[in-house]
Amino acid sequence: MPDKKYAIGLDYGTNSVRALIVDLSDGTEVASHVHEYQSGEAGIILDPASPHLARQNPRDYLTGLEDAVRMAVAKAEEGGDFCAADIIGIGVDTTGSTPIPVDAEGTPLSFKEEFGDNPNAMAWLWKDHTSVDEAEAITAAAAKLRPQYLAKCGGTYSSEWFWSKIWHCLKVDREVFDAAASWVEFADWVPAVLAGETDPKVIKRSVCAAGHKAMYSEEWGGLPDREFLAGLDPALGELRPRLYDEAVPSNVPAGELSKDWASRLGLKSGIPICTGAFDAHHGAVGAGVAEGTLVKIIGTSTCDVAVWPSDRDLADIPGVCGIVDGSVIPGMYGIEAGQSAVGDIFNWFVSVLCEGDSSLHEKLTEEAGKLAPGESGLLALDWNNGNRTILVDARLTGLLLGQTLRTTRAEVYRALIEATAFGARMILDRMEEYGVTVERVVNCGGIAEKNPMLMQIYADVTGRTMLISRSGQTCALGAAMFGAVCAGPDKGGYATIQDAQAAMCGVKETTYEPIPENREVYQELFELYRRLHDTFGLSGHSDALGDVMKKLLEIRSRVVG
Amino acid sequence: MPDKKYAIGLDYGTNSVRALIVDLSDGTEVASHVHEYQSGEAGIILDPASPHLARQNPRDYLTGLEDAVRMAVAKAEEGGDFCAADIIGIGVDTTGSTPIPVDAEGTPLSFKEEFGDNPNAMAWLWKDHTSVDEAEAITAAAAKLRPQYLAKCGGTYSSEWFWSKIWHCLKVDREVFDAAASWVEFADWVPAVLAGETDPKVIKRSVCAAGHKAMYSEEWGGLPDREFLAGLDPALGELRPRLYDEAVPSNVPAGELSKDWASRLGLKSGIPICTGAFDAHHGAVGAGVAEGTLVKIIGTSTCDVAVWPSDRDLADIPGVCGIVDGSVIPGMYGIEAGQSAVGDIFNWFVSVLCEGDSSLHEKLTEEAGKLAPGESGLLALDWNNGNRTILVDARLTGLLLGQTLRTTRAEVYRALIEATAFGARMILDRMEEYGVTVERVVNCGGIAEKNPMLMQIYADVTGRTMLISRSGQTCALGAAMFGAVCAGPDKGGYATIQDAQAAMCGVKETTYEPIPENREVYQELFELYRRLHDTFGLSGHSDALGDVMKKLLEIRSRVVG
Repeated sequence: MPDKKYAIGLDYGTNSVRALIVDLSDGTEVASHVHEYQSGEAGIILDPASPHLARQNPRDYLTGLEDAVRMAVAKAEEGGDFCAADIIGIGVDTTGSTPIPVDAEGTPLSFKEEFGDNPNAMAWLWKDHTSVDEAEAITAAAAKLRPQYLAKCGGTYSSEWFWSKIWHCLKVDREVFDAAASWVEFADWVPAVLAGETDPKVIKRSVCAAGHKAMYSEEWGGLPDREFLAGLDPALGELRPRLYDEAVPSNVPAGELSKDWASRLGLKSGIPICTGAFDAHHGAVGAGVAEGTLVKIIGTSTCDVAVWPSDRDLADIPGVCGIVDGSVIPGMYGIEAGQSAVGDIFNWFVSVLCEGDSSLHEKLTEEAGKLAPGESGLLALDWNNGNRTILVDARLTGLLLGQTLRTTRAEVYRALIEATAFGARMILDRMEEYGVTVERVVNCGGIAEKNPMLMQIYADVTGRTMLISRSGQTCALGAAMFGAVCAGPDKGGYATIQDAQAAMCGVKETTYEPIPENREVYQELFELYRRLHDTFGLSGHSDALGDVMKKLLEIRSRVVG
Repeated sequence: MPDKKYAIGLDYGTNSVRALIVDLSDGTEVASHVHEYQSGEAGIILDPASPHLARQNPRDYLTGLEDAVRMAVAKAEEGGDFCAADIIGIGVDTTGSTPIPVDAEGTPLSFKEEFGDNPNAMAWLWKDHTSVDEAEAITAAAAKLRPQYLAKCGGTYSSEWFWSKIWHCLKVDREVFDAAASWVEFADWVPAVLAGETDPKVIKRSVCAAGHKAMYSEEWGGLPDREFLAGLDPALGELRPRLYDEAVPSNVPAGELSKDWASRLGLKSGIPICTGAFDAHHGAVGAGVAEGTLVKIIGTSTCDVAVWPSDRDLADIPGVCGIVDGSVIPGMYGIEAGQSAVGDIFNWFVSVLCEGDSSLHEKLTEEAGKLAPGESGLLALDWNNGNRTILVDARLTGLLLGQTLRTTRAEVYRALIEATAFGARMILDRMEEYGVTVERVVNCGGIAEKNPMLMQIYADVTGRTMLISRSGQTCALGAAMFGAVCAGPDKGGYATIQDAQAAMCGVKETTYEPIPENREVYQELFELYRRLHDTFGLSGHSDALGDVMKKLLEIRSRVVG
């Protein structure tokens, strides 16, 4: 097969980086290798005195890059048919918002001797929550002065995001802040490194990171204006011109593989490298996100990604975390939503309340699978870790209702699964209310692959077909696909990401269709869920809930006959 | 000690009968013996085809009577100082409503050959729930035609009570119904047997059973009128004159010990026997119920008993199960309330959800005891078995709110205990709202004796001093005290039950006083509880609950500092 072409997808997660080599003709995954970061605990620098701190050493990113790519290439070559020279593109996705303070050459400050061990000079990992106060202050200031900024990110600016972290650094470590010529997102830095040009004034910036986390939009000319930032702190205003004015989608090359890095990786130099993006967004592309098809990545929490053509009107969707033009697919709005806890809720119930292990998940799944919808008489709210979409409120908590003296573990387990399905439907309903129709959902992640009961409940509750992504590595796959698009059709790649999807994405044979009689019961239960949701979730919302428990009992009597 | 006098208290429970011999001078419990009923399962006749059926064989009552008294006397005689001839009174309490169909001589129909194995001819045990439909029909008819009947029993007539059971018998077993010359409560039948005169036309009827379970009140001339009963079924109307017109409190003797039974029991004949009453009511007397002192019997469920002078005005108290003149203490209204599940909720959590045993109760109690009020961030409703008082609604279910991913078992355990304390306070508040003040609570039962944390929470939540009854056998003690009152002071007994209480009742040294700083937090939590209670418990009640979860988090942050 002399004309086979390949791309490498690099997927930087929280604890490791994966390199995946993909056959561009049909998406076959030729080889992959995962490198675990070596610093701190599982790659995360922690500080016992500051429990919300989570940083990473950018050296791990480079060590991991070299190891993961070399090993993946070596594995691919073992097959015999593969030749590294046929790799025509490289794509990169990372966690985020994970900003890194850099000097004028784009070198992370933590690489300099004077900052060596200072966590503030490292990468501020997405899950760092040291800047809660700054996030609240930004939300308050934007609500007053620039409400348009908030409208695109669901109404609340997060402590996990770009500006909160930079401002917090300014407050707690002026030395680092002053030494930073600029701040670069993790997703922007890796492609720049590969291209051999990290000058923050010229590197490509990801519209995905910029739009979803840094309040960037072409509507107001890019990042927040200097006046607004200076209102937060004059030093932030001064930083503004040292950042950037334009951000681009991943089909725009960030550059070409430098000679230096080509030799370090054992690849040809000159291979195009895509502009980076966040893992979930490339993952959605790799899973086949398209108009009408939402991708749901189900893990400890859930990330939902949808797209909508940019040339059609799309209003701001209240409570949806982010709507950014080109953040997922060029020429389309990327729409991001999510549930703060899904697998985490089941794990909490099994490991903390039941003190069980993974075998108990299996046992409860089996027993819960024998129950009919409504049979448990239970109803839960899936807010054990707050509500990310559509209420955008971290200060909400869980609720379980309907317990009797005979309520079993399996019934509670099923009720918790159903609660996450109702939460998922709230998101779909909100999107549809604002014109974004979703007909089918492609699900990714271990829970989706391993738990048919959960998938059937999701189909029944949402009334949508549930599909499972064929690839188990959709993030790296999506990154490789963007590598192929940056290479273009002349070199054996693709002209558009949609062309790449048509050739390279797929779903598993097993699909889950809504079962009409289940849908009917779940429609009733969902109406009760929505009343609890609104009554407990919206301040000032008033509802008479005196019928909720009784309706559950009526439904239960009906379904158990 | 030649002038010591004694009384025997007979306490007929669900599975056994206890005979207790008490020293009348100070309430010292000289000896006691428990006889387990032999029929059915633990004394209960069940029917697999009818899961709500629960009957008892009245022969067990007689066998048990003889065995329990003889054995108790034998044990007392072992001490050497005791002489059976110094027993001057006998008191009897039983479960109820447990009506027995009898012939014209007062012999239970099940003693007759033609009905031998027929459960309908036996005693219809209090927990028999075969007559749910009849109870609903009686409630509906009374609400329309005789609302005063319902006002005294909390607004709802129960399937556990006298008329529901008799009407159900009429519907399902006309032969038994027609053969019954009358129906006699268990509590009325045993004293009559001891007195050697069981003719249903002349035996004494307990005002406790009549008033709390048979809609008896002097206000309307006794039992429900014939017209009302005939409206339910003409045959019920015909039964009415074969029942009774007057019911009396336990200080009225039901008769004197017959020669026959004196010889069977090894006692003197002629000893006065008190008119029977229900176990919880005699238990309250034995625990020291008085104006301002409520007795709470905490077990799987809870029974609250209070009294109020009959010569002072007392309005009907909505939602309180029963208010009956003389049902507890002669000359006072007996007020009965209760929570449908208390210990049962903790047992459900430990044995079903946690799959633990009694050692887990201890472990969770210890861990929960280290938590401050409000620290868990949780709030629960104690309705896993419905709500008996003040909502009187079996179709309510449990609720747990405030869970995060870090919520522990011990936190849930404490929240469930707190929920039962809030439920207890709702009852106290409702009583006070209608003029029945309660300053202290005497608690009985194993949970009260063994769980100081629970008792402290009850003190903190209710703002009342919590005391523990000195006696662990308050029902039998109360019965013996009524035996002493029926004997009267001339024979070495007492003139009034209050005199007997003053001499014979007491509380343990350990008392639980409300701790001001805990009260403050619990007051806040109780206000949230009350809102959940009303919003979920009252139909048509409307409240905005959007602040509930956040207030819990605020309280939590405050108390954990």
